[in-house]
Amino acid sequence: LARVYFAQQAEICYSICRNAIIFSVKIAELGEFGLIDILSGMAAASGKQPPLSRRKLLIGIGDDAAAWQCDAAVDLATVDSLIQNVHFSLETTSWYELGWKALAVNLSDIAAMGGVPDFALVSLSLPGDIEVADVEQFGRGMLDMAEQHGVTIIGGDTCRAPLVSVAVTVLGNAANRERLLRRSGARPGDKIAVTGYLGGAAGGFEMLAKGLKLPLESAEALRKALLLPQPRIAEGGLLVGEGVRTAIDVSDGLLADLAHICHSSAVSAKVRVDRIPVHPALMGNFPPEKVLELALSGGEDYELLFTADAETMEKVRVAATSPVSVIGRIEEGEAGVVRLIDINENPVRMPKAGWEHFKTE
Amino acid sequence: LARVYFAQQAEICYSICRNAIIFSVKIAELGEFGLIDILSGMAAASGKQPPLSRRKLLIGIGDDAAAWQCDAAVDLATVDSLIQNVHFSLETTSWYELGWKALAVNLSDIAAMGGVPDFALVSLSLPGDIEVADVEQFGRGMLDMAEQHGVTIIGGDTCRAPLVSVAVTVLGNAANRERLLRRSGARPGDKIAVTGYLGGAAGGFEMLAKGLKLPLESAEALRKALLLPQPRIAEGGLLVGEGVRTAIDVSDGLLADLAHICHSSAVSAKVRVDRIPVHPALMGNFPPEKVLELALSGGEDYELLFTADAETMEKVRVAATSPVSVIGRIEEGEAGVVRLIDINENPVRMPKAGWEHFKTE
Repeated sequence: LARVYFAQQAEICYSICRNAIIFSVKIAELGEFGLIDILSGMAAASGKQPPLSRRKLLIGIGDDAAAWQCDAAVDLATVDSLIQNVHFSLETTSWYELGWKALAVNLSDIAAMGGVPDFALVSLSLPGDIEVADVEQFGRGMLDMAEQHGVTIIGGDTCRAPLVSVAVTVLGNAANRERLLRRSGARPGDKIAVTGYLGGAAGGFEMLAKGLKLPLESAEALRKALLLPQPRIAEGGLLVGEGVRTAIDVSDGLLADLAHICHSSAVSAKVRVDRIPVHPALMGNFPPEKVLELALSGGEDYELLFTADAETMEKVRVAATSPVSVIGRIEEGEAGVVRLIDINENPVRMPKAGWEHFKTE
Repeated sequence: LARVYFAQQAEICYSICRNAIIFSVKIAELGEFGLIDILSGMAAASGKQPPLSRRKLLIGIGDDAAAWQCDAAVDLATVDSLIQNVHFSLETTSWYELGWKALAVNLSDIAAMGGVPDFALVSLSLPGDIEVADVEQFGRGMLDMAEQHGVTIIGGDTCRAPLVSVAVTVLGNAANRERLLRRSGARPGDKIAVTGYLGGAAGGFEMLAKGLKLPLESAEALRKALLLPQPRIAEGGLLVGEGVRTAIDVSDGLLADLAHICHSSAVSAKVRVDRIPVHPALMGNFPPEKVLELALSGGEDYELLFTADAETMEKVRVAATSPVSVIGRIEEGEAGVVRLIDINENPVRMPKAGWEHFKTE
């Protein structure tokens, strides 16, 4: 029967691949069941993931649905997809990086709520001529990201498709429903701040898309910013702890994501261009105006953008172990409007608005 | 800014479409934000869905992640994708049917655990030349299915892609962790039963793929079986209540899904071919041998296949309001092996094994 046949075949192929004897087994030769077995087998074999997560998993991969004991205060859920030739190109993205990033961008959404991620479900679509060894690298990247944040992959499905696409759902929890990081909490007078550095992912995209030759150290930093992003889980927890109630992760670009906050909160914002923490690897490798554009409008940095009153903001800056830059302030005004100003409060012309995930139109 | 611009545009387009003035607005003219706004606007405007589900939703569409109060005993989660030209063709599937089915197949997985569905997250990929009116129909189908089962759509993402694909994650709950319908609970001596009728979806697929001209009533029944399946939520609850502990939904085909149970439970099974409840609309429209093949190996019927001891099975048959057919028994033997027998216990030759979701290879 299909199940038994494919499962056995998958086991054989998997063990062969792991022993590096044959690397040319194609997904088409495995079928749907084989692929699920490979990914769940990797999760089990890695030995790195806790067999039971922080939360009590009752049923993982292999039944109709996953089940866990409901023991948190608040459940969180988010989904995001990466589509070949829309969000990534296999010419510039390794399978390891794809697996890592597909999970990381979803963990970032949990971070932006101030929550802790628990579980992930992965829906993977692949052409039949993809090699099993590549899928193993995909799984390796995803499991490495999962391990760093204590996430267990509890289910998923795989199927054949003309292009590679990955839809990941991440489930998490928060301890207190009154202390979630929403988009709607910004108030006039709040300061606006962002973690880390901006524009690195967009710079990495420019570099890879245009084949730019940059110094090795810059090239590696920008590639990592684009393809191996780090979700700011710990920082999200710190913000919650210090009293912040408003945040978003920078996925569409600083200006676009700040506009999301302003729209949800029915406020305006002013951003000081001289305060933007541009990614160090951009400096000297792109013209100054381009650097600013990448930092303001490039997306996928997955830093946390947040607002809070001055006192709370000061507590965050003292407590934070990674960079936090105050870049502007929330004001009364037309909902969703963001204005750039210079050090003398004079208006600065906007660069083009946030990208929609590197889409070319 | 992008957000405000697209959101306003989406509102305009949506209201225009609803008033049937223009039906040719393309997705490409909306962008990602516009599409999310349309779908969430439809959910809000339908007025059919409860603003708060059975469970206390704290944050729905429009933030980084959805959040709800964790107040059940057991949380359930499942994901399944439908990919254009793999799982469906837009030449034979309406947008309404696609939206309905994409959610229904996931609710079926919750039914097969004996759980109740609460929330759905939808990741939708679309080519830019899809019309907004089509996406509205997609949303309508999904919301109608959601409404029937008290499900709230709490999040999702949309993006451009060369082909249409939908990945739906459904979150549900169960009241008692000891009473989940697992795949691994089948014991030698158990009877095997299935709800409803089998082969209808596969018959509908044959009909549409080959352009068969069937009598209107049969054609409508088979089309509905394939494209507007009904997840057996109520039946799953009934099974749990009567003491059943082992079930799966028939998505890969009766034989393949029974093999899944047998594999997970480390048992064999015998199935009486004369007991198979073939879909009535198949009779007379396909040769008898083909009818049996469709019922045994065709997939996507989304009936519940379950096992239980004779006493429990009798209680189920008495309590059930929809058809339940006992079709065989669980035996000791090689894990995962399913054999067909006739009324005299003589072996019957297997038709080909379960399809992998109508894939053509």
